[in-house]
Amino acid sequence: MSDTKQLIVGVDVGGSKINAILADAGGNIQARNSKDTLAYEGPEAVIGRIIEAISQLTSGVDIAGIGIGVAGAHDADRGAVAFSPNMPGWHNIPLCDIIRREFGLPTFSQNDCTLAALGEHRFGAGVGVDNLVYVGLGTGIGGGVIADGQVYTGTSGAAGEIGHMIIDVNGSLCKCGSYGCWENFASGRAVAQEAVRRMEAGVPTAIRRYAGGDINKVTAQTVFQAAQDGDYIAHELISSTAYYVGIGLVNLVNIFNPDLILIGGGLAKMGSLLLDPAIEVVRERAFEISAKAVRVELAQLGDDAGALGAVALVLQEI
Amino acid sequence: MSDTKQLIVGVDVGGSKINAILADAGGNIQARNSKDTLAYEGPEAVIGRIIEAISQLTSGVDIAGIGIGVAGAHDADRGAVAFSPNMPGWHNIPLCDIIRREFGLPTFSQNDCTLAALGEHRFGAGVGVDNLVYVGLGTGIGGGVIADGQVYTGTSGAAGEIGHMIIDVNGSLCKCGSYGCWENFASGRAVAQEAVRRMEAGVPTAIRRYAGGDINKVTAQTVFQAAQDGDYIAHELISSTAYYVGIGLVNLVNIFNPDLILIGGGLAKMGSLLLDPAIEVVRERAFEISAKAVRVELAQLGDDAGALGAVALVLQEI
Repeated sequence: MSDTKQLIVGVDVGGSKINAILADAGGNIQARNSKDTLAYEGPEAVIGRIIEAISQLTSGVDIAGIGIGVAGAHDADRGAVAFSPNMPGWHNIPLCDIIRREFGLPTFSQNDCTLAALGEHRFGAGVGVDNLVYVGLGTGIGGGVIADGQVYTGTSGAAGEIGHMIIDVNGSLCKCGSYGCWENFASGRAVAQEAVRRMEAGVPTAIRRYAGGDINKVTAQTVFQAAQDGDYIAHELISSTAYYVGIGLVNLVNIFNPDLILIGGGLAKMGSLLLDPAIEVVRERAFEISAKAVRVELAQLGDDAGALGAVALVLQEI
Repeated sequence: MSDTKQLIVGVDVGGSKINAILADAGGNIQARNSKDTLAYEGPEAVIGRIIEAISQLTSGVDIAGIGIGVAGAHDADRGAVAFSPNMPGWHNIPLCDIIRREFGLPTFSQNDCTLAALGEHRFGAGVGVDNLVYVGLGTGIGGGVIADGQVYTGTSGAAGEIGHMIIDVNGSLCKCGSYGCWENFASGRAVAQEAVRRMEAGVPTAIRRYAGGDINKVTAQTVFQAAQDGDYIAHELISSTAYYVGIGLVNLVNIFNPDLILIGGGLAKMGSLLLDPAIEVVRERAFEISAKAVRVELAQLGDDAGALGAVALVLQEI
């Protein structure tokens, strides 16, 4: 950037929150604004809220550019969200163009977890790391890859859809249309669904209480709270999820032989309760040389990884 | 190279054959020498045969360097074969050093399928392609990755072990020590084992005849021959294998969003009988944007891909 006083907007559009930040070139956050995504209202309403979030942040500020990430397969040629299994109606939405036209500023887009990988690589736990895989365990599972120091996005910009590795060839239908995807076993949605299934089968657990008595409000977070307070079933659910997290990590370790795997997304809040057993699976089942080489850690930038990655993308492009 | 008249040795050590070639900098093969690996005799005997193969090829020839690939996880720091599921006894064997000392020439090593990817990228079907995954469907399954035009080998040199993606979380033991690996479903060994299992169960098939009446001599190749001659069970075995090949390809397409997947190894000889149904699975189950972007084709350099990749590695390093 020619003028270092200019700031950059980074926006991360997730399944539940729109997180918009204003940062300088060092990744220091100057202001922030977040809104509920309310994805079920469809793309038009969500885009309206994205524009509103950016407008409120940038009013009267000199902006160098806007970076934006969405949970979904990215189409680099068209700056579009090609497909998002967890955002109803998002199919070939040219979000980058819409935002560029709205604000008349240089605007760049990418998949949210690819940006989280970039964010961690530039400002967080991945600084100086050559080979890094970011695993976003949220409502679904997304991924981002740094290969030999560069963000890897593939031919169309849609690489890193690690949540849709088939880990159970006999598995059930996934929201993406395939079957047996990792996301069906190790995402926030999977944890909540399995908890509800057990509660409906009459298994005694305190999870319902943590969801305010409403089975429809059970989330991975309520399961985690119940587990922390000693609920046996909740604990078992998290152990089982950790095992499946580990299975997917084995695949990533054998395929990428990375220095570092960073775990982000909502499930990362479970910390070592989730991570330690998952790492154990990697040690047992991945090739020894790659299992020894890899560190599996919690992402450092937390909920801001994607938005800071969007800032890093703008810095990289302008 | 300073002297273009110098030639390069490329050696590919596979589970069944040692393929050594002598080539110029354009990848033109000037001479070749192959030997049975006889892997069951252990590393010392195999290394003896590798040295013999190279000696016979290089006698009286001006050699610039030697490149060598082995079917197994590669340890870049030590130029060693860290572990090879299909080569008994290969555990931390410093092959590169042994060959360098034997011949006193610049010597470089890598995993065989990583070299096949490099070979196809430099001299074969992958020339000019930025993002390429080579899938070696042999006795086991190996892989090699070109990412953004560069060979990707990961942190220790052991990346690309795609055969050990878990595709069946409830699957049976793999030679690598894990369970449910892709290699258990879609390799030459898997085809032969499933054929034998059915024959032992008394299923009527002509496969035995193609193995000279000896059930112990059934290979993927004999199954293919029987299928070509109209044997129903053989045909069904190949269809089922093709389905499982497709499942692994879905994962690679979602993870890498590559321009090109090249299918090599012994099973590639089955051609469209294997490839067409596998591609169908990719079209049905991978993310649409990535499924549309990828071409899935047979490797072009055939059995020489690894050895030519070893030549390319020497050209890259010296």
